[in-house]
Amino acid sequence: MEKYPLKKAGTAVPQHSPSYQSVDKKYTNGNRATFVATPDEDMIDITTSGGGERTTRLGEDEDGTSHYSVSFGGMQENVDIPGIGQYDDFHTIDWQRDIARDRMRHRHIIKKKQDSLWNLIEGAHDAWSGWLCVLLVGLCTGMVAGGIDIGASWMTDLKFGICPQAFWLNREQCCWSSNETSFDSGNCSQWLTWPEMLGQSREGAGAYIISYLFYIVLALLFAALSASLVRMFAPYACGSGIPEIKTILSGFIIRGYLGKWTLIIKCVGLILSVSAGLSLGKEGPMVHIACAIGNILSYLFPKYGRNEAKKREILSASAAAGVSVAFGAPIGGVLFSLEEVSYYFPLKTLWRSFFCALIAAFILRSINPFGNEHSVLFYVEYNKPWIFFELIPFIGLGIIGGIIATIFIKANLYWCRYRKYSKLGQYPVTEVLVVTVLTAIIAYPNPYTRMNTSQLIYLLFSQCGISNSDDLCDYNRNFTNVNSAIEIAAAGPGVHKAIWLLILALILKLIMTIFTFGMKVPCGLFIPSLCLGAIVGRIVGIGMEQLAYTYSKNWLFSGECSTGDDCITPGLYAMVGAAAVLGGVTRMTVSLVVIMFELTGGVRYIVPLMAAAMASKWVGDALGRQGIYDAHIALNGYPFLDSKDEFQHTSLAADVMQPKRNETLSVITQDSMSVDDIEALLKETEHNGYPVVVSRESQYLVGFVLRRDLNLAIANAKRMADGICGQSIVLFTSGNPPQTLGPPPLKLKKILDMAPITITDQTPMETVVDMFRKLGLRQTLVTHNGRLLGVITKKDVLRHIKQMDNEDPNSVLFN
Amino acid sequence: MEKYPLKKAGTAVPQHSPSYQSVDKKYTNGNRATFVATPDEDMIDITTSGGGERTTRLGEDEDGTSHYSVSFGGMQENVDIPGIGQYDDFHTIDWQRDIARDRMRHRHIIKKKQDSLWNLIEGAHDAWSGWLCVLLVGLCTGMVAGGIDIGASWMTDLKFGICPQAFWLNREQCCWSSNETSFDSGNCSQWLTWPEMLGQSREGAGAYIISYLFYIVLALLFAALSASLVRMFAPYACGSGIPEIKTILSGFIIRGYLGKWTLIIKCVGLILSVSAGLSLGKEGPMVHIACAIGNILSYLFPKYGRNEAKKREILSASAAAGVSVAFGAPIGGVLFSLEEVSYYFPLKTLWRSFFCALIAAFILRSINPFGNEHSVLFYVEYNKPWIFFELIPFIGLGIIGGIIATIFIKANLYWCRYRKYSKLGQYPVTEVLVVTVLTAIIAYPNPYTRMNTSQLIYLLFSQCGISNSDDLCDYNRNFTNVNSAIEIAAAGPGVHKAIWLLILALILKLIMTIFTFGMKVPCGLFIPSLCLGAIVGRIVGIGMEQLAYTYSKNWLFSGECSTGDDCITPGLYAMVGAAAVLGGVTRMTVSLVVIMFELTGGVRYIVPLMAAAMASKWVGDALGRQGIYDAHIALNGYPFLDSKDEFQHTSLAADVMQPKRNETLSVITQDSMSVDDIEALLKETEHNGYPVVVSRESQYLVGFVLRRDLNLAIANAKRMADGICGQSIVLFTSGNPPQTLGPPPLKLKKILDMAPITITDQTPMETVVDMFRKLGLRQTLVTHNGRLLGVITKKDVLRHIKQMDNEDPNSVLFN
Repeated sequence: MEKYPLKKAGTAVPQHSPSYQSVDKKYTNGNRATFVATPDEDMIDITTSGGGERTTRLGEDEDGTSHYSVSFGGMQENVDIPGIGQYDDFHTIDWQRDIARDRMRHRHIIKKKQDSLWNLIEGAHDAWSGWLCVLLVGLCTGMVAGGIDIGASWMTDLKFGICPQAFWLNREQCCWSSNETSFDSGNCSQWLTWPEMLGQSREGAGAYIISYLFYIVLALLFAALSASLVRMFAPYACGSGIPEIKTILSGFIIRGYLGKWTLIIKCVGLILSVSAGLSLGKEGPMVHIACAIGNILSYLFPKYGRNEAKKREILSASAAAGVSVAFGAPIGGVLFSLEEVSYYFPLKTLWRSFFCALIAAFILRSINPFGNEHSVLFYVEYNKPWIFFELIPFIGLGIIGGIIATIFIKANLYWCRYRKYSKLGQYPVTEVLVVTVLTAIIAYPNPYTRMNTSQLIYLLFSQCGISNSDDLCDYNRNFTNVNSAIEIAAAGPGVHKAIWLLILALILKLIMTIFTFGMKVPCGLFIPSLCLGAIVGRIVGIGMEQLAYTYSKNWLFSGECSTGDDCITPGLYAMVGAAAVLGGVTRMTVSLVVIMFELTGGVRYIVPLMAAAMASKWVGDALGRQGIYDAHIALNGYPFLDSKDEFQHTSLAADVMQPKRNETLSVITQDSMSVDDIEALLKETEHNGYPVVVSRESQYLVGFVLRRDLNLAIANAKRMADGICGQSIVLFTSGNPPQTLGPPPLKLKKILDMAPITITDQTPMETVVDMFRKLGLRQTLVTHNGRLLGVITKKDVLRHIKQMDNEDPNSVLFN
Repeated sequence: MEKYPLKKAGTAVPQHSPSYQSVDKKYTNGNRATFVATPDEDMIDITTSGGGERTTRLGEDEDGTSHYSVSFGGMQENVDIPGIGQYDDFHTIDWQRDIARDRMRHRHIIKKKQDSLWNLIEGAHDAWSGWLCVLLVGLCTGMVAGGIDIGASWMTDLKFGICPQAFWLNREQCCWSSNETSFDSGNCSQWLTWPEMLGQSREGAGAYIISYLFYIVLALLFAALSASLVRMFAPYACGSGIPEIKTILSGFIIRGYLGKWTLIIKCVGLILSVSAGLSLGKEGPMVHIACAIGNILSYLFPKYGRNEAKKREILSASAAAGVSVAFGAPIGGVLFSLEEVSYYFPLKTLWRSFFCALIAAFILRSINPFGNEHSVLFYVEYNKPWIFFELIPFIGLGIIGGIIATIFIKANLYWCRYRKYSKLGQYPVTEVLVVTVLTAIIAYPNPYTRMNTSQLIYLLFSQCGISNSDDLCDYNRNFTNVNSAIEIAAAGPGVHKAIWLLILALILKLIMTIFTFGMKVPCGLFIPSLCLGAIVGRIVGIGMEQLAYTYSKNWLFSGECSTGDDCITPGLYAMVGAAAVLGGVTRMTVSLVVIMFELTGGVRYIVPLMAAAMASKWVGDALGRQGIYDAHIALNGYPFLDSKDEFQHTSLAADVMQPKRNETLSVITQDSMSVDDIEALLKETEHNGYPVVVSRESQYLVGFVLRRDLNLAIANAKRMADGICGQSIVLFTSGNPPQTLGPPPLKLKKILDMAPITITDQTPMETVVDMFRKLGLRQTLVTHNGRLLGVITKKDVLRHIKQMDNEDPNSVLFN
């Protein structure tokens, strides 16, 4: 049995259940070889009947399979070995074990460093790979986001017309490329609307009908394409992805959810579904896209790609980059990742996430997709101070926001549950088409719903200036001087009309978003939520403004408004309202305020934003327990152990552990079970691992062994080691078996995890839940006076929580 | 034995080592009473020979002692009972236990809620008390910070002169109160310098000497006062306090460190030592002051004041408020608290910290101590874009910053170690006086060291405008029009002179700060670090600017500088340099960038700041392992288990646990030791707690019992229960003792913690360290196959880490 010299590195601490993945081969020349990948990832042990091995690592697959080229016994062989520490789909990862594996790998590299220059470079590469990886993630995320922004903007405009001389330009770019110096509301002679393309005039009833038809047909086309692409190529590309990302980051495996197909289809589908005019946004899915990029790029760096726990550090940074490009808010992105998405967030990750988010925002700004030097369409810059008593309407907006958010969450959940359990779920494409047609028909006549939602938000956020010709800014003002301050003035008829249209838009958007979020197309709800809030806020803001105009002598307003300047900023109300609804829907807190703060670039409005966000969150929490993401996690039954909910009950570990009374616990004894016994146990039960005890009578705990390791070890031993048969005693001790007769024993101490996490049966469940959360356990063993009583898995904990909350414990799916 | 009905609340889960603190009293009328405080804090059990008890809670002390008024047996009695879960000074807290206690209390309140309206209000108060407490902390911190800012500004000006008509005004306010419309460099006729007060002229050699003398004498006076106050009333008020706050937040008790005397003396001493012109800042101590405010206010809310783990949530929020008022950066403050100071930071705390930081910043801005609508003196607003290749000098500044920071840390540590182990440490006041005199003598002639350090930073950060008459802005420019952009121009002689003075100032500040930081006066090093970096940055910036002027046709500069505008902003370089040195000294990362970002109010400069901060941190990490705070923690031997350092070694729990080979473990058996045996054990050993095992032979672990509980329980039992004597068997089981002869057994199951955290001897230390950090353990028990082998305490872990890092393990002090 020859070993490669590097093997020694892992000998000191293989306590954390090392798993040796192996492949056996028999050759026609009688040679036999077992290839065992060791925890040191880059090398394999070979046990052969030949000699002279030489290994070259070729690479690895996304599922963790490593490819090696091995020369031995005079022949060249390509071997594929399943990855070490690889988990099955829909399984929970063991953070402790993965982190231990990474530290072992790290120590190995440190030790090798002195050996040669190459190893030194390898060590440096390893130390830098985290930074390099997040740099690449940031670059790619920025570029992909820029592409999506440009694509969505072009296709949205395509519903209205085309730039015949350069069809790849959107309306704004088309008008730039022409040399006309003035054009109002983005219409210039270069850009032709569809009626014009068909030879009609731009105005008139005929043109209106043609435009209407083109709008509906193109929306339908885009939506159909988006839904079909998702259905055919990447079912995981639908939705916003944030509930799933939360679940994945909490330590759960969903294979393919962050794969390349999902990424491609999500990008294309997102452009299509946004362009279709559906009531959805591209900001939430940006997080999913960024995480997919992070996942794919992590495979370039085995340190991250091959280690699920470490990979999640990259994914946390990616999520930050996703929000960063969605809102041009790098700090907000990091806080979003910290607060909302991530689970295990060491401080090292914080710094790297910030770097990643910053690079992504920087790249996106350099691409400049909106032509305004900012990475979001609705960046605003205010400088008006707010008045202290305005906190009252701001808190009022927070309360309204919380109510709207609760209505939205409840209705959306009801509809999603209906979709899930009725026949509707079987016709996802049809559903998308119906919703699209309805949205398009209702949205077109109202200019505020016809326009892109981001543009509407921008309009609502912005202050009325001289150049603004929208109805919303139709005040009875006399502009005499460009430089003078804008005066407060009475609202004109245009404002009244705009308010009615906005109320209609609010109702339509609310209803359509309820039906849209959860459909099988990529769709986010940041933008619709912001839009709902912005509409409410703008209306309240205009109301306040008119109050201040009418009662400008009143003591409330007299301080700031007596000068005749515009003392109330309706755009600020829109922003506060937007924050309130978004906060109510997602229950974001700090990150929400910081994102909104970064949108305005001034510390001045943090207090109003915070007041609204707090009011909204409290109202939301009082009316309904969960935010939309947690609600969708519960709906889908993902095994997500929320780190924010406190465990309130008084149960003990003994109440939760398996087996319950009258059942027996499947255990393995350390030195008295035969190979046949263990194989029978493996066949009878489906546990992921088995505790090893001193003897069945005493039940004193020795360690824990994983099913996968047992299977492999027995299979290998049977084929390779001499004399091992079904009657061989399996030994988990270092000594000899009690009886010396019979076949030679199978020694499996090396696959035994001698340091399982244990608790006593009297441990309160609150402590157990805390340990599961903080240590990222997969299971824990329950003992009493040293004797093993049972096992608690993460699923048991989740089921118990559901049970205590009077919910159906069987709704927790997967393992 | 009567019990109050509320007693039942805690019966379900008293597994987490409930500790019953009790007081015995004997009365002359023969009555005997034992007062036992139960975990439900608000009530006490009384065991009396009288009857008719009625308890009223009077309040509690800072050290946790509760005062009750009790009527029983016809008499009124005031009882003081030591607090429950109270720790001794310089001990480590047990987070798990404190959190469990809080949850128990919470459940108790929830349960009571239905009972009456009063209980409902009490429940609501309890739910709100966290928010109310941080609100108060924010308000007080903002006000105290405003007071300190105003006081320091007034006393600093007092060294130069006085406002005779209103001595309480500082120079700027004095000049405002006069009606002169123009005054340059803050000198107006109302404000009299000391020579003028003495009847001399303002200029001339005589006036200079008088000013110089006044400056030195007043500096000496202030410093002497500051040092004496600290020495006499509050020795804990010296230094920046951040290393100690970090240690306290990591779960350590230092009584009085956050007490009211420390707070008062720190505030007064800080004003004095800043005014003395020493090379120190008031920003770091602001964190200590805020935490002291948080600590004192938390006693208004028993939920926080009586529970050390919960109290640390308030302290985390307070630290955020401290940084928030120091830099006017609420978000940066929260991130500082999260990244640098806090240990256990649940997400709920994040939101509350943000609220607290925001309130504090808002109050400070309303007080407006600097008269510029900002809460810091050196708030700047830039809008010039930076050029991509400028990243090279920015990274260069980062490297220089890292080097300066390393020099500072090493030299300061060397000096502090010398002070600690030499006779110098015995003369703190003398040391302060000598340093003050030297600083004053050297600083006065140089205008850049004579002025307040914050003002110098402001000067270095700011752009040269038309109104700026300082030497630094002496460019050969022709100002023709106020509105035109400032042109790039050659540096005049004033700039050359300023650069030489700045270089002198840099050297002086560096040397003086090395000797100043660590003296027995309140002193922070944020401001000196920023100042050092700002000087270097400004010099580099001027160099770059002149390069751009000279080679404006060069391709590097031609893009931005060809228009003749000022394309390089030396103030930005100063800011980047400041961030670099501060980052190198403290090893802050995200929070540093965010604080600097909030100072400028623009997302534009995040990339340069980040580049410099990263370069500086990496250079610092390469040259010296620790930041200044961690170095001072190590120097003082605080038992701080850093959550950022990874444990790199391969040792096992068996290598670390006590007892070592050839020693015996002090254990208690569950049913075979007599009261005398246990009392002997308590006398012989000094452990904080003892494991309880089935029998001495088997060593199977049953639970853990605290020394304090044992002492109390035995003392109570001996006095109160009938027949308990030295030969009584102490029973930790619920059954009866094996032998039935002899005196009745003493049943102590209720003080036994049946759920101690255990690990196996084969557990790698990296996992153990992880558990200590994440679960906040005080000790863990080591078992093998269910048998108890030993104990690992936090101190053992810290000693082991020191040992592995080849440092003296005995330098870890305290328990």
